[in-house]
Amino acid sequence: MKALIYQGPEKIAYENVADPTPDAVEGAVVRVARAGICGSDLHIYHGHGFSPDTGYTVGHESVGEVVEVGSGVQRFRTGDRVLIPGSAGCASCDPCRRGDVLLCANGRAACYGLSHALEGSQAEAVAVPAADTSLVRIPDGISDEQALLLTDNLPTAWYGARHGAIRPGQTVAVVGLGPVGLCSVMSALAMGGATVWAVDLVEERRALAETLGAVALRSADPASELQALTGGRGADVVLEAVGSDATIQLALQLVTRGGCVSVVGVSQTHRFPFPMALAQFMAISFHIGLTSVQAELPALIPLVQSGRLKPELAISHRMGLSQGVEAYRLFADRSGGAMKMVLDPRR
Amino acid sequence: MKALIYQGPEKIAYENVADPTPDAVEGAVVRVARAGICGSDLHIYHGHGFSPDTGYTVGHESVGEVVEVGSGVQRFRTGDRVLIPGSAGCASCDPCRRGDVLLCANGRAACYGLSHALEGSQAEAVAVPAADTSLVRIPDGISDEQALLLTDNLPTAWYGARHGAIRPGQTVAVVGLGPVGLCSVMSALAMGGATVWAVDLVEERRALAETLGAVALRSADPASELQALTGGRGADVVLEAVGSDATIQLALQLVTRGGCVSVVGVSQTHRFPFPMALAQFMAISFHIGLTSVQAELPALIPLVQSGRLKPELAISHRMGLSQGVEAYRLFADRSGGAMKMVLDPRR
Amino acid sequence: MKALIYQGPEKIAYENVADPTPDAVEGAVVRVARAGICGSDLHIYHGHGFSPDTGYTVGHESVGEVVEVGSGVQRFRTGDRVLIPGSAGCASCDPCRRGDVLLCANGRAACYGLSHALEGSQAEAVAVPAADTSLVRIPDGISDEQALLLTDNLPTAWYGARHGAIRPGQTVAVVGLGPVGLCSVMSALAMGGATVWAVDLVEERRALAETLGAVALRSADPASELQALTGGRGADVVLEAVGSDATIQLALQLVTRGGCVSVVGVSQTHRFPFPMALAQFMAISFHIGLTSVQAELPALIPLVQSGRLKPELAISHRMGLSQGVEAYRLFADRSGGAMKMVLDPRR
Amino acid sequence: MKALIYQGPEKIAYENVADPTPDAVEGAVVRVARAGICGSDLHIYHGHGFSPDTGYTVGHESVGEVVEVGSGVQRFRTGDRVLIPGSAGCASCDPCRRGDVLLCANGRAACYGLSHALEGSQAEAVAVPAADTSLVRIPDGISDEQALLLTDNLPTAWYGARHGAIRPGQTVAVVGLGPVGLCSVMSALAMGGATVWAVDLVEERRALAETLGAVALRSADPASELQALTGGRGADVVLEAVGSDATIQLALQLVTRGGCVSVVGVSQTHRFPFPMALAQFMAISFHIGLTSVQAELPALIPLVQSGRLKPELAISHRMGLSQGVEAYRLFADRSGGAMKMVLDPRR
Repeated sequence: MKALIYQGPEKIAYENVADPTPDAVEGAVVRVARAGICGSDLHIYHGHGFSPDTGYTVGHESVGEVVEVGSGVQRFRTGDRVLIPGSAGCASCDPCRRGDVLLCANGRAACYGLSHALEGSQAEAVAVPAADTSLVRIPDGISDEQALLLTDNLPTAWYGARHGAIRPGQTVAVVGLGPVGLCSVMSALAMGGATVWAVDLVEERRALAETLGAVALRSADPASELQALTGGRGADVVLEAVGSDATIQLALQLVTRGGCVSVVGVSQTHRFPFPMALAQFMAISFHIGLTSVQAELPALIPLVQSGRLKPELAISHRMGLSQGVEAYRLFADRSGGAMKMVLDPRR
Repeated sequence: MKALIYQGPEKIAYENVADPTPDAVEGAVVRVARAGICGSDLHIYHGHGFSPDTGYTVGHESVGEVVEVGSGVQRFRTGDRVLIPGSAGCASCDPCRRGDVLLCANGRAACYGLSHALEGSQAEAVAVPAADTSLVRIPDGISDEQALLLTDNLPTAWYGARHGAIRPGQTVAVVGLGPVGLCSVMSALAMGGATVWAVDLVEERRALAETLGAVALRSADPASELQALTGGRGADVVLEAVGSDATIQLALQLVTRGGCVSVVGVSQTHRFPFPMALAQFMAISFHIGLTSVQAELPALIPLVQSGRLKPELAISHRMGLSQGVEAYRLFADRSGGAMKMVLDPRR
Repeated sequence: MKALIYQGPEKIAYENVADPTPDAVEGAVVRVARAGICGSDLHIYHGHGFSPDTGYTVGHESVGEVVEVGSGVQRFRTGDRVLIPGSAGCASCDPCRRGDVLLCANGRAACYGLSHALEGSQAEAVAVPAADTSLVRIPDGISDEQALLLTDNLPTAWYGARHGAIRPGQTVAVVGLGPVGLCSVMSALAMGGATVWAVDLVEERRALAETLGAVALRSADPASELQALTGGRGADVVLEAVGSDATIQLALQLVTRGGCVSVVGVSQTHRFPFPMALAQFMAISFHIGLTSVQAELPALIPLVQSGRLKPELAISHRMGLSQGVEAYRLFADRSGGAMKMVLDPRR
Repeated sequence: MKALIYQGPEKIAYENVADPTPDAVEGAVVRVARAGICGSDLHIYHGHGFSPDTGYTVGHESVGEVVEVGSGVQRFRTGDRVLIPGSAGCASCDPCRRGDVLLCANGRAACYGLSHALEGSQAEAVAVPAADTSLVRIPDGISDEQALLLTDNLPTAWYGARHGAIRPGQTVAVVGLGPVGLCSVMSALAMGGATVWAVDLVEERRALAETLGAVALRSADPASELQALTGGRGADVVLEAVGSDATIQLALQLVTRGGCVSVVGVSQTHRFPFPMALAQFMAISFHIGLTSVQAELPALIPLVQSGRLKPELAISHRMGLSQGVEAYRLFADRSGGAMKMVLDPRR
């Protein structure tokens, strides 16, 4: 089959690879209908990925149809329309059975498309381990594109917003307005944020955030701008959706006394200079983590079904899988208004 | 001064009364700019009020300007624009100082306009006891009409929704679509309700709820209608905003297993036939209470300021205080689309 | 094999029955090491059980060893030492997989020993449906007797205390001091209750509650007694562990303004006279439900392992299964200090 | 009057100073019955205090009797027995009125004994600003020594434990077993901690923690020791009560995936090397802050009254105020088992 392969820094290739080989008991194969490129895929693209491997299929966001199931799979059948959360778990431990696959007690938590350990889904098909915990049926009223955003970006934003502990009536700032940041704006409003400020260097992204209900901060010094707007208070909750040291520092500057900073941007920093004494004076809660997508979906699916969350608004490009190399280039350059890139293996 | 006086069942009169006489130390006088008629005023109007008194000034919703303050008042001055929450407390106990005036440790919790104990505010002016805890400054960006809805109806709806413990993504049903019910719809959506179903006998009210984002249940048997819509599930949370036995029973029929029913409609029933065995099988949380308005405002004010909550949409009539008798009649009859009735003493 | 059989009011017999026949795919058979008699078994004993059946095996509390497993069972093997929660679910739905078996989406929630639908465990062996969700492995450091209390009584008390929403530093009253009530005392203290008052008609039970840290109310009018002790305040949270109308009414009299009443005693009342207007004035939260035991165990197991909860202190009698008829009689009469009755099929 | 005066590094003197001069309207004077020396006083003692001042009275923990009140004070009178929380606020803003003095909207949050701005209470008497928010009446059943621990150490520990978000049944590790650390052990157990591990370099402190119910980690590498004890899991919640970089790093090593680290030790670090990428992989919540003592007392007072919390067990020395210089020396050296040092100005 065809797939997008990581061959080294800035080298993604569209190539033939062997068909997926699932676990005969617990596994499944999904024929991919849509695959997404995620901001964290750019870490791989730029050569600072999460394994030393090359030659593996990239991608961890996809939806499609089950075409093969193992003999022990209880919850899925051939023909089921499914979304594949970015992380997979095991078939039997308690955390996996309740959706917390990243806490897998059997040490089998894994993410697609980071190495040969679990091949990615920017491909015509993908093998899923432990299908009963690693697949989610797409309910009625959810489109493929909405489902695709439910495999990672929206649940990641929601998880971050949950850990920001937004109380209705509070103010929220979102740092970084890529797909996860936009989904963070939507999430903060859905959770009752009274005002959501939006920060990004790119004006198109700020404008898009404003159409979603945010108020953009446009000065070169957003921390001072927010202080001025709030009489020196800052935001009750800050959601960080980039992961760089600079943006995490900015998040810490935007938050009010007693507030919370929640980071979902992927950080690769080992010694971040945390302003501890100041944070103590300010009384800060800080959360950073990765999302067990499965655990977030019960809240998100009804909100997408009813139209209260519209994650598909983050999509900027719809291209064929065969155009994947170009899609990566556009996304890496942020050119042409590139936000969420969606690939269709069938065209 | 002029005021609306309760003289007996169905008899409200517009009359001259003595000017208000506040406590010289803790009290204040507010010149009323707008007063509202509340659904619970109809209990009084129909002769089943909350005291045997007659001849007292009715009304517990008003906003205006401070024109006199006692010598010990620390937080307010003449000229301050204020809203007067429906309940007043004392100047010094812990619950009152944090806004929970109904839990006043000195037993001084009181509601305006129920008896001679605390004269009401459907008048040109009103005396406020313990001004420091019983008044709230109107912040910038809040109109008089919005502030009027913040004295009772919106905080009551919000309090009910809070005790419904709505989690974002849950479904909500609202029973009764008067001003408090409409504010309940708004509150449920602001707290992240995925779908909000709205129940009322009056089509105009259902249509208004739909413009706010609700889905009206229009059949004669809304419980069956909701079961059909939800595959037999029902609503995660039900907010009751009427207070009759029939509507509380309906609320208990609308809720799902493990769900919550929260009642803010004023009940005058002493032996409600609670379906205990069924409720146990269903695992129901049930809350009923009255609202300390002051405690709800910190969350509500930013949501009104930012336009995320628009309680003024519940207003149907704007009349002079001198037309108060007619206003009561319209509201009692629900004629002319009567919802929130606002009275202006200056016209 | 031998089992205790319900034959009609006040008639429990120790008899031979057919060996259990589990589902060949999802089921399992457990050889019972200890079985308990529960307060709710007395409803059956007195002839007002939960089905019209007779001739079925009673009992829903047991621990033992897995002696047979179906071909599709993933989490258990022959030889595993297990406890059997009082309720069973299905093998595949989301609620069952996370332990909320009473919310089984496939409608397969069932309790042992109420009818022929699911034979009980006061027997030498018991068939378990959907073993993966209906069994729990007994961890190290938990005795058979402790595990037996984890099949129902302690999780029921804990569930009730959780829904009482005890905050550390609050006061709690427990109504009814049978095994569930004693476990409620323990739970309330473990959750940070500052003072736990204990109410029961039987002095031996009150004395036992006091050894656990409670303060017994001993007057004939415990509501007045508590008002006197608390300066008219009452208890922040009341846990009801009987289920009669009288005790639920008492619970409503013991609670303070803004407090919570949580009922876990089994109610068979259809029209309980709920004092609605008073409850509204008091601002009461009320919860009543049945416990999905599986969902409570992750918190309880560590507390039993570390000795912070000692549910085995509720055990009063250890008898052979062959003495089961006598055990029921003692328990129904509350004679001889009967509290938790434990039956051993091997003696 | 006599007082302990900071004169420079390692120089505390017992001297005559002018009597306190309170604000004539809002203030009060308290004659000190007991004053405590706090771990954070050692920052001052060692010359790295919180202001460049010298010559001021030190100390922020005291209890005593009100001997003078301003004309506008509503809640206190001469003769009242009071505790003085370590931080003071203003008389009128919302946060101060509900006890969150560190969030004072008028910028008047202040701590006693850090500079001449607010003279300390290791003295015969102390002036209290805004008495209505800065004093707390000592309720019946609380001794002077217990009340003294309620002015800072126990509320600080409790605040830290609250922000650790301990759920009953979770495991907790406490790093640092000075008075705050010991109070953290008590707090963690009162909140339902199943097992509380205790870490300190000093064996006497570990032994004392064990008498309170903790399990001491005694190896030179407590992180590895805990990993071994928990099968590689670590603690659900870690409470840090020292504030050094090394102990905060240790706290981050002790916590489990998805867990929480809460720091109440006073940090003076500006660029703490936070292991961001690892923390993200681990999904860590981190909180650091300072305590508004007033806000914690409603929960703590009943727990001390009922004997469920015994903060007085942290007291090691009872000395006269005149022996204050010696008390500081003992405490700084940790000699003679020095833990909580209590000074009595009357002997």
